[in-house]
Amino acid sequence: MKEHVFTYDTTLRDGAQQEGISLSVADKIECVRIMDRLGIDFIECGWPGAIPKDTEFFRQAARLDLSHSSLVAFGATTKAGMKASKDPQIAGLVDSGASVITVVAKSDPRHVTSALRTTLEENLRMVRDTVSYLSSPDAVGRPITVMVDLEHFFDGLAWDSRERYPIQVMIEAARAGAAAVIPCDTNGGNLPATIAQMIEQARDALVNDGHEDVVLGIHAHNDTGCAVANTMAAVGAGARQIQGTINGYGERTGNADLLACLANLQLKMGFDLLGGHALTHLTSTARSIGHIVNIAPFSRTPYVGASAFAHKAGLHASAIRVDPDLYQHIDPEQVGNGMRMLVSEMAGRASIELKAQELGIDLTSPDLATRLARIVKEREADGYMYDGADASFELLLRNEVGMLPPFVDVESWDVSTGQRPAEGQPLSSTRATVTIRTHARYIHTSEGNGPVNALDRALRAVLTQYKPEAAVIELSDFKVHILDQHHAGTASTIRVLITMSDGEREWSTVGIGTDIIEASWEALFDGYRWGLLPR
Amino acid sequence: MKEHVFTYDTTLRDGAQQEGISLSVADKIECVRIMDRLGIDFIECGWPGAIPKDTEFFRQAARLDLSHSSLVAFGATTKAGMKASKDPQIAGLVDSGASVITVVAKSDPRHVTSALRTTLEENLRMVRDTVSYLSSPDAVGRPITVMVDLEHFFDGLAWDSRERYPIQVMIEAARAGAAAVIPCDTNGGNLPATIAQMIEQARDALVNDGHEDVVLGIHAHNDTGCAVANTMAAVGAGARQIQGTINGYGERTGNADLLACLANLQLKMGFDLLGGHALTHLTSTARSIGHIVNIAPFSRTPYVGASAFAHKAGLHASAIRVDPDLYQHIDPEQVGNGMRMLVSEMAGRASIELKAQELGIDLTSPDLATRLARIVKEREADGYMYDGADASFELLLRNEVGMLPPFVDVESWDVSTGQRPAEGQPLSSTRATVTIRTHARYIHTSEGNGPVNALDRALRAVLTQYKPEAAVIELSDFKVHILDQHHAGTASTIRVLITMSDGEREWSTVGIGTDIIEASWEALFDGYRWGLLPR
Repeated sequence: MKEHVFTYDTTLRDGAQQEGISLSVADKIECVRIMDRLGIDFIECGWPGAIPKDTEFFRQAARLDLSHSSLVAFGATTKAGMKASKDPQIAGLVDSGASVITVVAKSDPRHVTSALRTTLEENLRMVRDTVSYLSSPDAVGRPITVMVDLEHFFDGLAWDSRERYPIQVMIEAARAGAAAVIPCDTNGGNLPATIAQMIEQARDALVNDGHEDVVLGIHAHNDTGCAVANTMAAVGAGARQIQGTINGYGERTGNADLLACLANLQLKMGFDLLGGHALTHLTSTARSIGHIVNIAPFSRTPYVGASAFAHKAGLHASAIRVDPDLYQHIDPEQVGNGMRMLVSEMAGRASIELKAQELGIDLTSPDLATRLARIVKEREADGYMYDGADASFELLLRNEVGMLPPFVDVESWDVSTGQRPAEGQPLSSTRATVTIRTHARYIHTSEGNGPVNALDRALRAVLTQYKPEAAVIELSDFKVHILDQHHAGTASTIRVLITMSDGEREWSTVGIGTDIIEASWEALFDGYRWGLLPR
Repeated sequence: MKEHVFTYDTTLRDGAQQEGISLSVADKIECVRIMDRLGIDFIECGWPGAIPKDTEFFRQAARLDLSHSSLVAFGATTKAGMKASKDPQIAGLVDSGASVITVVAKSDPRHVTSALRTTLEENLRMVRDTVSYLSSPDAVGRPITVMVDLEHFFDGLAWDSRERYPIQVMIEAARAGAAAVIPCDTNGGNLPATIAQMIEQARDALVNDGHEDVVLGIHAHNDTGCAVANTMAAVGAGARQIQGTINGYGERTGNADLLACLANLQLKMGFDLLGGHALTHLTSTARSIGHIVNIAPFSRTPYVGASAFAHKAGLHASAIRVDPDLYQHIDPEQVGNGMRMLVSEMAGRASIELKAQELGIDLTSPDLATRLARIVKEREADGYMYDGADASFELLLRNEVGMLPPFVDVESWDVSTGQRPAEGQPLSSTRATVTIRTHARYIHTSEGNGPVNALDRALRAVLTQYKPEAAVIELSDFKVHILDQHHAGTASTIRVLITMSDGEREWSTVGIGTDIIEASWEALFDGYRWGLLPR
């Protein structure tokens, strides 16, 4: 029987402190549903009473039918000189109806005196009063599980290693009835060795005071780049509740990435975290939550990132053909992710062969793969980049193996743009014309929002005359890279990467040129060409 | 005297394996200059011989006058059944002229037999032969420092804990004359406790075999989210060379973030890494390299990210007013970063006042600074960016305080470009016309290498008719950023940053627009306007 470590998500509270994140009540509800499906034990959802949106969230959340997760209301201990039972802030937490309440307590003596401006004794009383009030069903009208976040625990313990005030606060909370106590590395400045040593001290103190049953937690931030490792170190030293956020969202450098911690503990350290729920939902959970918070996903995110199992090096590719496990720390399907081969100048024959296989194209001879690897290398030296342009690579491949059907001939294209600010026409007017020849000659002129947009419209329109299915193709992403831009100014090589979609599929192409329009033209043309390939 | 840990950057080799990174020779040269300025000990730059661009890099790098860093050529041990002295791959490394060569050796017995398809004995011979050949000045014609990357060391040692083949490979390299041996967590799947324990075994084995002088390194990947912590753990266990990349670039989840490791070791663990060089260059190094590799910076990056010291929580903000140290693990200025308050209206006022002072412009009232801070905030929300565009900021400032002399009126500008591929004219022809009015009306049409170049030429020519000194102004740098490029395609906002020079001074301007030409026009126009300001 594997030992359980409780998962505690704070994306909706601490994670929302991140620059650029602002969640509506509906957003939070949707996140809760996704996390419940994954099997997260506790979901901290906000500060009811203090933040009106969070009050409303708990009102609506009461109707949620969750299969696993408990929702947590977050707040603070009562104020200096106040009784918890008379404190409106505490009343707001109780009124939320949450079955779990986490209160944050100051545990660094410096913060008690300089930020809270009270005495160390009064702070202990505030913790005792708040926890015992909230955990008394008679007083609050129902049983509530109370947890205590110990703010600045590690910094405080390092500074006050003699009196060990942070440990005193923790013991006070345990004696008053807290079900869990969570040392927090609030400023995120600690390294794993320190975390492990202090969690051991905390564990020992709890046991010595007769509180083996109180769950010890860990709440880490990533300011030293060690939030995940600090969480691992804490569990290694006896912590059994991990607090973190999806994708590591959070203030400054973020909180511990909960999903990476979860995967590490379950796959590498032999703990049980998700119970009957499956790790295979990890990647989709990260992506769905990322979509709701509207932060572009970070492709290098461990386990769940788009690049987490993407291979580019030629050396690796040849070994992967032999056995994928040789170059992967886990099977990506365990966490619902997948392996991807990237084609690049560093790639050798092996990755070209793998890619061709993926595209269903048979490379009849090994010479062909070698020749293709050489062509890719030469073209990347010119400025092309195929690892983000699968469709361009496929066109290249098909052309080399004689599997590229003929397409239209371009007779000409041109685009013009300009402004007449003196006549009160501050916006640019742009017009593009494209002429193609196939069995007939087609010409179309479009206006656009900038030259690339005008060119895209004109090209789509003229191709639609030739093949009506071109009408549904849309440009969904456009990226520009200027190569050697520090040296050659406007005469340097420009690379454009374009993503197109027809509502069902999405594909990317690359173009280069001495200017952005020339480069865009190539990427656009190849994009439509790929989209109109007979399937 | 603090103990030194060697810094070894592999951004230009292993980092370039990241999806979306493709570096030109000029890019690599510029990165090297930036890292040399920071004081990185070793900079691994590529695989000369195997990759043509890298061969060319080392040819050009021979002329670089570096103050501190040594450049490293990367390659592999010789092949099975081959002599290193006859191996063209090894010859390519020697021919690069690099004073340091790192070769990668297989150290996991499973990889030797299944990927390399040779015997464990033959692999040992390959390591011995390669290292002794490269480290013999008589054989290669000059003294070369040889380092050996031990691929899959940790996975191999876990699997083969009895024979300890990875340790055998390491000892073979040390005996053959390697100056440094670097256990690599190639698949990135290990956690700090394992890394520490195995590095200790490696350290002991080296000492027992009489190789205390051989530097033991660590090369970590971030697949468990622990690359930085794994590097810390290794140094704690005796490693004295850390390999990593700027901003943690690299294949899959990336390599260890070298700057975070460096800051942790120097600020938290008491090691010396940068010698006389200053940690205060950390943030600018990360940003400059990020700009060259053209990957949008990740704001949550420890120490150097834009959000690394940004505070949003109301709780924190009020405490920070009391004492910033209460909510920051270090003073951000130690690493060249700065604190940012995300809700404070006052943010920015102080820096505006400082900047005006720097430009010799007196802000007569504090209201003016507040108003300017608001304008800058609004314009930055639109997409402008002033911290790389001092000249644009000065124009804005002068305009607000009534110190901007009148300039020409633009009657109109236009630019057109196109191709006639079917008639055998593959190159684009581009033409721009600019008309200005001052006491007279001037008009000029220029051809150019792309639309921005044509526009620049026409604008300079027409302004030269009005003020002859415009003739010496030259565009020396041109950068494009697409904002929100994941969401809006070609209709997204584009930001252009331009640097101009008149042979004596250099200045930068910014322009935004829905297309690159509109944005370029604004930056160009402001650039000439600033250059022609009466002094």
